[in-house]
Order: sequence, then C-alpha cells, then structure tokens
Amino acid sequence: MRASRFYIRTLKEVPADAEVVSQQLMLRAGMIKRVAAGVYTWMPLGLRVLRKVEAIVREEMNRAGALELLMPAVQPAELWQESGRWDKFGTELLRIQDRHQRDFVIGPTHEEVVTDAVRRDLKSYRQLPVNLYQIQTKFRDEIRPRFGVMRGREFVMKDAYSFHADFECLEREYANMYDTYTRIFERMGLEFRAVCADTGAIGGSGSHEFHVIADAGEDAIAWCPDSDYAANVELAPAMPPGHERAPPAERMQKVATQSKDTCEAVADFLGLPLVRTVKQIVLTATEEARTLIVLLRGDHSLNELKTRQLIGDFRFSTSEEIAAVLGCQPGYVGPVGVSGLEVIADHSVAVMSDFVCGANEADYHLIGVNFGRDLPEPTQIADVRNVTAGDASPDGKGLLSICRSIEVGHIFQLRTTYSQKLGCTFLDAAGQSQPAEMGCYGIGVTRVAAAAIEQSHDERGIVFPLAIAPFAVVITPLGYHKSEQVRATADAFYTACQNAGIDVLLNDRDERPGILFADAELIGVPHRIVIGERGLNNGQFEYKGRRDADATLIARSDALEFLRARLAP
Amino acid sequence: MRASRFYIRTLKEVPADAEVVSQQLMLRAGMIKRVAAGVYTWMPLGLRVLRKVEAIVREEMNRAGALELLMPAVQPAELWQESGRWDKFGTELLRIQDRHQRDFVIGPTHEEVVTDAVRRDLKSYRQLPVNLYQIQTKFRDEIRPRFGVMRGREFVMKDAYSFHADFECLEREYANMYDTYTRIFERMGLEFRAVCADTGAIGGSGSHEFHVIADAGEDAIAWCPDSDYAANVELAPAMPPGHERAPPAERMQKVATQSKDTCEAVADFLGLPLVRTVKQIVLTATEEARTLIVLLRGDHSLNELKTRQLIGDFRFSTSEEIAAVLGCQPGYVGPVGVSGLEVIADHSVAVMSDFVCGANEADYHLIGVNFGRDLPEPTQIADVRNVTAGDASPDGKGLLSICRSIEVGHIFQLRTTYSQKLGCTFLDAAGQSQPAEMGCYGIGVTRVAAAAIEQSHDERGIVFPLAIAPFAVVITPLGYHKSEQVRATADAFYTACQNAGIDVLLNDRDERPGILFADAELIGVPHRIVIGERGLNNGQFEYKGRRDADATLIARSDALEFLRARLAP
Repeated sequence: MRASRFYIRTLKEVPADAEVVSQQLMLRAGMIKRVAAGVYTWMPLGLRVLRKVEAIVREEMNRAGALELLMPAVQPAELWQESGRWDKFGTELLRIQDRHQRDFVIGPTHEEVVTDAVRRDLKSYRQLPVNLYQIQTKFRDEIRPRFGVMRGREFVMKDAYSFHADFECLEREYANMYDTYTRIFERMGLEFRAVCADTGAIGGSGSHEFHVIADAGEDAIAWCPDSDYAANVELAPAMPPGHERAPPAERMQKVATQSKDTCEAVADFLGLPLVRTVKQIVLTATEEARTLIVLLRGDHSLNELKTRQLIGDFRFSTSEEIAAVLGCQPGYVGPVGVSGLEVIADHSVAVMSDFVCGANEADYHLIGVNFGRDLPEPTQIADVRNVTAGDASPDGKGLLSICRSIEVGHIFQLRTTYSQKLGCTFLDAAGQSQPAEMGCYGIGVTRVAAAAIEQSHDERGIVFPLAIAPFAVVITPLGYHKSEQVRATADAFYTACQNAGIDVLLNDRDERPGILFADAELIGVPHRIVIGERGLNNGQFEYKGRRDADATLIARSDALEFLRARLAP
Repeated sequence: MRASRFYIRTLKEVPADAEVVSQQLMLRAGMIKRVAAGVYTWMPLGLRVLRKVEAIVREEMNRAGALELLMPAVQPAELWQESGRWDKFGTELLRIQDRHQRDFVIGPTHEEVVTDAVRRDLKSYRQLPVNLYQIQTKFRDEIRPRFGVMRGREFVMKDAYSFHADFECLEREYANMYDTYTRIFERMGLEFRAVCADTGAIGGSGSHEFHVIADAGEDAIAWCPDSDYAANVELAPAMPPGHERAPPAERMQKVATQSKDTCEAVADFLGLPLVRTVKQIVLTATEEARTLIVLLRGDHSLNELKTRQLIGDFRFSTSEEIAAVLGCQPGYVGPVGVSGLEVIADHSVAVMSDFVCGANEADYHLIGVNFGRDLPEPTQIADVRNVTAGDASPDGKGLLSICRSIEVGHIFQLRTTYSQKLGCTFLDAAGQSQPAEMGCYGIGVTRVAAAAIEQSHDERGIVFPLAIAPFAVVITPLGYHKSEQVRATADAFYTACQNAGIDVLLNDRDERPGILFADAELIGVPHRIVIGERGLNNGQFEYKGRRDADATLIARSDALEFLRARLAP
C-alpha cells in the first residue's frame, strides 16, 4: 500500500477523554473514531488490524472443524422469552420495537438464535456434534462504556456454539476449543493466560477465560510462573498453610491502641508484622438473618465469592448490628469472649498463635491471643480469602504471582440449559429424546486489538506484534519527492516486497522525514526500511525494528532476504 | 470440505410462506433460516455464497483504490438531525433509545457517519480524493419485508462514499466505480445491465442502477440488445417516430360503440388495430388546479414521471371534474370540440391520422379523426409515455426490449448535499473553504446471492455461477461406506482436488445416491464427479455439469486436468 493512497491521519495531542493507553493510541493513530459513547468507526488503518485478528480466529476455528455462519443482530423477543432471558437480562439488553410495535433485541449474544436454528434441523444423534461460529457485530448497552473499544457498546465478537449427543463429546470439543484458543492467541503474538473461571477446585474445567497480560487491565489473575496454573484472583483457591499451629508462647494482654482501628495501624503502632494480626469481619447471612464472624489474617482480604459458597447470601453487618452483638464499634472487635456466634477462621488464621485482635472495647486490642486457651477453636476452618502474591500455587508447583489482565476470550460448558428451555432435542441411539449438550466459546475480536496495544506500546506509540500489525514493513524513503534515485529505488523495493507477499507500506507522502518516522512508529509497524541518497551511494538501506534502539545498515542487495528472515513465522 | 463434517440440511417441501423462487430454494437448500419477518440467519452453506460475493466486491473495490473501513450499525440521532434526515426519513428508519434515553438509529445507510469521520480529518484539497467503503450489516424497517433476503430488513451492503475537491474528480471516480461494478457483476457470472437511473436525457450520468436480469424481478428495464443502452422503463425516453403524419384519407364519423369504454374494446369492436386509437387522459395540475388533456396512442401508457417534469405535480381528474369540463363520463372522452383546455399529445399521437377517439358522448366514438381538420393541432407535443418493446432505442442503435430485473447496485453523485449540511469542507488551492463533492456507491450483497438464484435455477434447484457457488465441484462416491476401492479413490481424488486449490465438496455422507445427487443439485454445485465401482473397473469417473442433460465418462487419470480446464476463469 502506498501511504499517499491510504488514509493516514494521526493526531499529536492525546484526546482529552481517552482514559487508557490503548484508547489514546488508537485515537491518535487514527485507527478508530468515536461516533457515540462506546460506539466507534474502524478507520482503514484500524480495520487492517481487526481483519488480521479476524483472519487468525477464522483460520483456527475452521481448522478445528467449526463451521462459520452469520446470525442477525436483530432478534425477536419471543426467543428470549422462551429462554427466560427476556426477564433475567438487565438493562444491558437493548430492547427495541419495530414499526409494528413488535419487540426485538439487538443481540448481545446468540444462544437463543443458534439453538433455534439447530433445533429445527436436529433429529438424530448422528447429526451431532456440530460447532457453529460467527464473527459478528454485537451490542451491549453498558451503563458506562469506556476505555475505547475495550469496553464499547457495539463490538465485534467471535461466538461459537457447539452441540453434542453426550457430555463426553462436549468435553472433547471443550478441550479442542481450549487448544484452538491457545493457538489463536499464540499466533497473534500475545502474552496471555488461560485461567480457570469456574468456582470448582483445581481441574475444574467447566469454564476458562483467556486473559492478555497488561498492567492497565481491569482484571487481576493469579498465575504460577513455574506451571500452567492461572485463575481469576477471585476464583483461585488459597491453599492451607503447610505447617501446624505453634504452641502459645505469650500470655494474652489487653493493650491500649489509641484509636488505631485497622490491622495496619495496630501492627505499625505495636511494632509487629501485619501477619501477626487477625481481622474480624461481621456478616449477616441474608436468609436466616443470623450473625457470623469471619477471621482473616491482617494482610488478607475477604473473598466474597468463596464466603457466599460457604454460608449462602450475606451482607456486611451494620455498625448498629455489630454494637448490639459485640458491644463495640467496628475497628476494635475480636473473637475473644464472644459466645453464641459461629466463627469461621480462614486456614491461615487457624494456624496462628500469639496473635493480635480487637478487644471488643474501643481503643483496645488484645495481644498474645491463642485458640484453645483464650478462646474456643473456630467453629469452622475454611478458605474465605483472596490469594496474594507468594501464596502456594494450587497445583503445588510453585508460588503464585498476581498480575493485571484483560479478558479476551471465554469458553464455557453450557450443558443443557438452553437446549432444555428451547427444546433442542434429538433421538439417541436407543431412540430416546435427549436435550443436546452445549458449549459456547467467545472471543472479543475488537477488544483483542486494544488489549494487544495495552500489552505492547512505548512512549512513541504502538508496538504491534507482527501477526496483527496493520503493515509488516514500512519503507520510508528520504526525499522521495526530490531524488529520482531514491524514488526509483524505493518504488522498485516496494514492488519487490509486494511480489514476495510482504505486507508493506511505502511511506511516499510528501512530508518531512520526522513526520514519516513518527507516524510509522505511532501506528506500530514492526519493521522499518529507510532508503536515502547517502545510504544508496554505499549500496545500503537502513533497517530498524520497532523495538530496536538503533538502526542497522544492510546491503541493498540483501534487504529482501533480510526482511524475509525477520518475517518468517 | 467433507459433507459429513459440514452442515447440509435440505428440505423436500417448499416452505409455505416462501413467495419467490430464490426464497424457496434458499430455504430448501438450507442456505438461510428465517428468524423473524425479513430477518435471516445465513447457515454455513449460504454463508459460503455470501463470502464469495463479498470477496469479489472487496477485491474489485480495493483494486479500484477504495479503502475499506467499518462503521457502526448504531448511530447517534444528532448526526441525522444535522443532515435533516431525522425528520425526512420515514418509518423505515428504526429509531431506538439507549438506557439513558438517548436517541439512536440502526443505520440503514451511512452518509452521515462517513461525512462526520472525514470532516474531522479534512483540511486541505491535497487530502482528496478518497473513497471509503464498508461491507456491513444494515437494517431497514420495511413495512412488508418479503421475498426472503431479496427484500429483507436486516441485510449486508457494500456501501462506498467518495470525497473530492471538484466535480471533475467526482466524475472520474464515478466512471471508475461504474467500471468496477461492471467488473464485479461480470466476475460473478451474472447477466446484468447498468441502467440510467437519473431523469436526465441520454448521457445523464448522475445515477446508475445495476440490475440483474430475472423474470421474477420487481423492476422493469428497457434495454437495447444491439448496444449498451439500458434504463428503468420509467426513465427511458420514447423517441419521436421517424416518419411524418400521413394526410387524412377518411372523413370523421360518429359511431355507436355500445358501452365499449376502453381503447382495446373499441378497437376490437370496430375491427381496427389498437394503434389506430387515441386514449385521452384528463389531469388536474395541482398548483393552479387547471385541467389538461393528454393524448396517448391506445397501446401506450402514461409515464407519470415525464408528465410531472412537463406540467409539475398533478392528479387524475375525478369523474365529476371530467363531466363538468367535457360533459361526458370517462371512457368516451375525446379532444374533438373541446376548447379552452391545453392538449398535450404524445409524439406518437402527433403523427397519427384517421384515428379513433371518444366522442364526448356516452356509448359513442369518432373514427377518421385528423388534427388540423377536425380539431386544432395539439397545444404541445411531448414525450409523456412509457416505452414499449420494439420502440427505437434512444441511442439510435436498435430497438428496445423490456425485461424484468432486480436492482443489486446503485451509484450516485451526491454532490455537496451532505458535505454542506455537515460542514465537510476543505481549503482549495486558493485557500478558499469548499464543501467536498461526494459520490456514493452501494451493492446489496445479500440480495446479489438471491438475484443470482432468481436468474439461474431449474426444476431441480439452484444453478449457481461458478464464481459464487458454495462449492465448485462435488465428488459423489457411490458406496463410500461399502466399497474400500470407492472410498480410497474418492478420498485420494478429494485430496488431489484440494491440493490443486479446487473448492471441492466430498459427498461422503451415508445416504442413498439419490439423496446425495438431489442435494448437490439443489444447492447448485456447478460440477459433479461420480466415482463408482463399475466406472473404476474401467478406470473411469463420471462427469456432469449442473446444466448438462447427460453425464460423460472421463478417464480417471485425466479427471483433475478435465476439472481444471472447466474451472479456468
């Protein structure tokens, strides 16, 4: 592509309302243009990236045996009523009426439509399995769309839906999709992790998310550098400590702590490490309105998901409720002397001795506290905390790291939720009617492009992985409009690159070299060739990788082979 | 593709609500599935066709220098208010509100969005021209969606918008797009015509429609088999007859015509050819409420568009109005003895002599009527009729034919309508601010697939042109699941075809040959190879083109070359 015939419009200034780096860089590079909140046009430069992402997704889905189809954006309400989601889905579901006042939705997802299509054809188990996917524009009416295309309202997704005669077959396809997603993100050159997204223990395989690692990511994942283990921080099990509780060494004492009402402040005030303190959280179980105490180590935080699984729905007790039960305001509450309340201790607390906790009296804490001596053993010992960096990996193969990430894919075993509701059934080998086992598999295509930029950029702009860069190579001639020699050589090398199948941009615009260089760096082209008169007089081009600090001189005659070597997969 | 791993679900019965052939065949072939009125899922088989159509459009648009982008389906009302179309567009415009009660539309077209994108970047004439296109899903809330994807509500369009510094440049791009569209439809193997769609005379080039010729088409076009001339019937000029009026030979007589109140009935009753009769139409010009008479030859019909251009807005006069002016009911009115009314004669009437017309008296007509003798010459002679088959082509190169057709593309010179309203301006070479000249260019991508089927099918199903067929070749083995020889040979030939880059379907499903043959014919695969034991024993395959009456035996060893020759472009 000749830049003079392409649409390159870069911005110097960072747009005022762009909150994250990818959004800033995509707007500055002219990849996208904002049309409305969370709604963007993909300009020709951005679309090249999007199409490369799509092509990789499509190739790998086809290779995996999935079949592409195209479902409509506008879906009739009847199908959503049949599945029960018309009522369940909240205001993110954009509901519309056509001119005849019939209800429709702008589809945020397509379980209903695909299940309806398949049920109309499905008769026998011999027609299964089938995996149908589409790359299609979706709409979710996010309350606060932001971060550009990262959390847009209109976006492109690859969504796949598989149908199976039995669960084993679903599991095989799930594994197939897991491998396919791994290949997809590897081919895109992204650093990513497949994380367990179900709430089961290790090995739970009903749901995985694929996360691109990026400092500015909205999610946090726990992962083990020494193994494949990765999970959402919320979902990673905290392993019980590998050691027993030490015997008591101190006697319990009440100490004045002068309005220090957090573990950090108390530890600091007492000159003790935070890990010697115990945090008491008072909860009200919603159903029976009973009060419970949860004990966490001072440096840990409550995992509400795990707690909910343990005790059912709950809320944090109010100050009034806490005062009524413990006779004390939050900040100084503790488990000593409390009776009649269930006490749930996190594993890490259960092995503590000589710990610090609130004294149930304002401005006082207890030190040297020990279970079994100063208070009863906890009613229950359980995993109720979020993991932290340095925790043992649940797979026993090392220590966990925590990093920020962006979810770009999700695979999920739907089982028969939709097939039962919509009557997507088949006759099995014994002639019995069965609902199809289903899986669904999504990739946020537009989000991948933004996530790649979050992961890889520098002060000069985007650093695209080769596989999804808008162009693989940029040829920047110095004086294209002044020197006949430069122009002829650049044109010839451009043609040679094209003939070699290289995705090349000839930077032939009549602009200062500084602008040409800056634009090519901003838009993230991985490889740059500079052709100037001085180099040509020595038979040389200049090469610079996007990440390289310095340029390299290469022989003009070797340039094509030099590039080919760098572009080889 | 192996059929056993593909999604082929054909129907024997014609769906009850399918009105036209393409809709029936697409549903029967399993190409599409209806989701709601005018809303369809493109199943894997149908999507293969759609993608081939898209690919040809994309390749040719790129070759023509247009740049692809992707604009959103959901568009903010503000842009439509700015262009004035928020009020002008009727109920076909699907208006929605998001969760914050902000107004949006589901875009039926993208002039506003693209003009907004360009105006934000456009500064200088040096940035022009640019032609931006997308292949994108649109929604038009048709009051009566029908004919399947031919007149659906959700559909895929290629829409392009060009921006220019001056009209000459727009004209060049318009010609470029005209040529590009011609290449696109030629490559698709469609019989089509580019028809003038503006109301100007021959050579008017502000708007052309591209029509696929098909008996069941909604439109009628007039075209000349001996030249390139084609136009919407409504827009084709009727050339004045090439001969003078003959001198009167009969005397005028009043004859009783016994309640014969149409030209056909009168001609029949009198034993005269229809072309000897004159039809009188009485109109009321809306603005001044004056009454006019239009005279047409009995076999011709009024062209309202041409008439409107001549006299401004009008309506047909009521029976009461006619009676008040002519003293007679419609059916027997004529121009003789009428005074004080403007009489517009079509060119073909102006050269008639000894004609038949109403006598302004119920149940009576006049015969042997002549201008200048029995009544004054017409006030005005003009082209106010629709052309008919056999009329002279306006380009003077032969006679017109009339055929039915389906509009699949439209190119249009928008000029500065949108750029002025939206302020899409640039500084010209003299430093003056100018609105950009714009063109727009659409292709109904989903409609093309249906139009191709309307044009080409037979009693056994679809007959796809090679370029857009879901598969180029189908290999149907006889006894794939019974004969090891057949299976091995079919597999090997399938692989050989794939390696040769042939888009081949191996019909390896475990069904009776009759079903395999019928399905492949229904879905319109152009070339069929049959591999059976009997043929193999003679070293032969059987070949049959989709249109062929009989199969041909070909040597197994030559089969690949044989196919290659048939698939060559």
